[in-house]
Amino acid sequence: MEQEIELKSWEVLKALAADDDADQLRAYVKDIGVNETFSAILRLSRDEREKVLTTLSAEDAADFIEEIPDQHAAEMIQKLSAEDAASILSEMESQDQADVIGALSSKQADAVLAEMNPDTAANVQRLSSYAPESAGGLMMSEYIAYSEDTTSGEVIAGLGERGEQESTLGMYVYVTSETGKLSGVVELHSLVLSRHTAPIAFISKPCLSIPEDTSLTDLEAFFDRHAFLAVPVVDRRERLVGVVHRQHVDEALADSAAATYRKSQGIIGGDEIRSQPLLLRSGRRVSWLSLNIILNIISASVIALYQDTLSAVIALAVFLPIVSDMSGCSGNQAVAVSMRELALGIVKPYEIMRVWLQEVSVGCINGLVLGSLLAGVAMLWQGNPYLGLVVGVALALNTVIAVSIGGTVPLFLKRMGKDPAVASGPILTTVTDMCGFFLILSLATLMLPNLITG
Amino acid sequence: MEQEIELKSWEVLKALAADDDADQLRAYVKDIGVNETFSAILRLSRDEREKVLTTLSAEDAADFIEEIPDQHAAEMIQKLSAEDAASILSEMESQDQADVIGALSSKQADAVLAEMNPDTAANVQRLSSYAPESAGGLMMSEYIAYSEDTTSGEVIAGLGERGEQESTLGMYVYVTSETGKLSGVVELHSLVLSRHTAPIAFISKPCLSIPEDTSLTDLEAFFDRHAFLAVPVVDRRERLVGVVHRQHVDEALADSAAATYRKSQGIIGGDEIRSQPLLLRSGRRVSWLSLNIILNIISASVIALYQDTLSAVIALAVFLPIVSDMSGCSGNQAVAVSMRELALGIVKPYEIMRVWLQEVSVGCINGLVLGSLLAGVAMLWQGNPYLGLVVGVALALNTVIAVSIGGTVPLFLKRMGKDPAVASGPILTTVTDMCGFFLILSLATLMLPNLITG
Repeated sequence: MEQEIELKSWEVLKALAADDDADQLRAYVKDIGVNETFSAILRLSRDEREKVLTTLSAEDAADFIEEIPDQHAAEMIQKLSAEDAASILSEMESQDQADVIGALSSKQADAVLAEMNPDTAANVQRLSSYAPESAGGLMMSEYIAYSEDTTSGEVIAGLGERGEQESTLGMYVYVTSETGKLSGVVELHSLVLSRHTAPIAFISKPCLSIPEDTSLTDLEAFFDRHAFLAVPVVDRRERLVGVVHRQHVDEALADSAAATYRKSQGIIGGDEIRSQPLLLRSGRRVSWLSLNIILNIISASVIALYQDTLSAVIALAVFLPIVSDMSGCSGNQAVAVSMRELALGIVKPYEIMRVWLQEVSVGCINGLVLGSLLAGVAMLWQGNPYLGLVVGVALALNTVIAVSIGGTVPLFLKRMGKDPAVASGPILTTVTDMCGFFLILSLATLMLPNLITG
Repeated sequence: MEQEIELKSWEVLKALAADDDADQLRAYVKDIGVNETFSAILRLSRDEREKVLTTLSAEDAADFIEEIPDQHAAEMIQKLSAEDAASILSEMESQDQADVIGALSSKQADAVLAEMNPDTAANVQRLSSYAPESAGGLMMSEYIAYSEDTTSGEVIAGLGERGEQESTLGMYVYVTSETGKLSGVVELHSLVLSRHTAPIAFISKPCLSIPEDTSLTDLEAFFDRHAFLAVPVVDRRERLVGVVHRQHVDEALADSAAATYRKSQGIIGGDEIRSQPLLLRSGRRVSWLSLNIILNIISASVIALYQDTLSAVIALAVFLPIVSDMSGCSGNQAVAVSMRELALGIVKPYEIMRVWLQEVSVGCINGLVLGSLLAGVAMLWQGNPYLGLVVGVALALNTVIAVSIGGTVPLFLKRMGKDPAVASGPILTTVTDMCGFFLILSLATLMLPNLITG
């Protein structure tokens, strides 16, 4: 009996590349889609990946590279020769080129840029100088603009030559003055209906624009307020420099939200995919962990100050990790709510007092509930009401402290221009651990006679 | 000297509503934008909010309600009379209507639906029966479709009557058979260029469609693969039932990523904004915390089994919370990487073994680094190399356990149809705490003579 062997996608990719079968490879990549191709290519060796990317036409390779996360795109590009890399990059959209170049080391970037058309290279360098989450970083240099004295007929003829590829992103025709200043926008139907020999200045309408350094939050607010598919970006002298599309803002918002989650869980300094080299992955993770263990040792050193109390009432040792964990949980809830309110723009970074008042009331209720629960468990277990009192009061008070810090720290960090997703967690747990250990052990010290005789 | 008093946005809203000044109110809301209006309206009392929403025209109120998160939209709507609520809802786009109705209690939903046009109400009920993150839940019922025998001229005339409001979402004209089956799509330019007396069946092109239950991940993959702005949705009999727009998929992905972060931090059972009632906020948070404290007590009970060892070497108590916290950190990093790989589709839920092998190697390296660090600190502090050995080995082993669980638990949960964002954290910390306490205290028990004499 013959056995049918079903090839996995990475095996198919590898086989087609090995055969130099560009057409079949292209068809297969198109068929399985970007994500599956990405998943498959990650399982290939360095040489096999290179072979797949160079067997594809530069255009097809560019279509693939554009769609995967920037950092991973850069990792694949940097393994290629500068020449191959340049020919793939040249087929990409301008803002994708800039993102990939920005993710390369400056030496690699220079090597690739040197192989590109000098105009394209200059444009990419200009785009990659903007902050990635600003209008400059998100804008495309591919847009349609004509000077005011162009006639409608000339514009229509010009649009015809461009073909259909821009049509999916919605078409706006921008009008610029002699000096390159944005002076307006022409709607397609008025273009068609106008006298074709008249300059477009006559039918141009005023148009909103945004500065290059507009933040992602402000871009979101802009597209909230206006039902546009795209908005032109101008420099300080009001010259048109690019166009930001709604779709790219939405994608950047999704990326940013997903990155917030990863940063809060300690994936810092570059995103990880498990096919990256072991030492890179391990090194990034452990550098964040090493900082954390030092903070942890500092806060746990509070316990060392109360060794006599602990020796006398060894049962307290059971409750120290509980108070530490639970305060972290309560505080992280408050952090998450503050992050959301900041993202929605319904709380401003200076409203620390208002947020604190709203958190402290939740903290009091939840502290009472959790404190009573833990007090009850402690009492039942050791038969000593004073032990219950000590751990219950400590947890209740520390819950209030935890939500106070958790709610306000993201606002503080935002005001100081730091990333709240990265730093809120470590600050929160260090302070609440110290306070929690101090509360439980100092209360126990005060009530030591009752705890021992109980 | 006169003092200028600058009114805050909520004070302006309140004043304009109190004056019944609908035009000014509308202009002001438009000027400050949705987010600022949302932020302002949250600071008003229940009656004042109602006054603002009813002073605005139903259309303007709908424009605002459409743009705020569903759950908060539902909270505002439910405070209005069923009649007012129905007239605002009637002005909203179909999928927004369905989202808001879906977020109301069934009693409130019925009351509002009873006040709406019966056809609209039936449509909303149908739409709200779909899962929110499926094609059915994201699709709009507003689309342009004509039967095959309609002539091009009739379609062009019909489009003219619709006006411009659909233009921002990109326009596709779908063609349906007599039985409502989707048979193709007509491009605008071929419509204009065709003979206007011929049925559109002649110029219709075949068109891709997706089933109602397509998941958000599959929708993302679809729009990755195809440069469309929208895709038609068909039911089991291939009848056209709605259209999903790329923009709504991108928005849903951003919402989903942000929700993953909040769920991982313990904001479960509904999103929170601090102007919600105190008991609602507190209750949601404390229900998750109560489950966690029980898990915490269970894992800490391991410590109670080793009270004799702890009494003999009280310094161990300092290291218990450190091992617990650090294992949580290492494990959560692995969870975050798995969540990302699942979201990117580059790891499948059944590939648990592959992920485990990739994690265990990182765990070994990081365990060695962290374990050595902690061992060094313990040794220096107590001058006892055996104490260093015990805590270092315990942390190293537990780091391997933590990354093994952290990397694989999200895949397990996904396979079982559970939400990995919610459950991964509590499962991880419970198991790693138990293992950590057990490792440190059982190793210490084995080496007790060395620890005491050292």
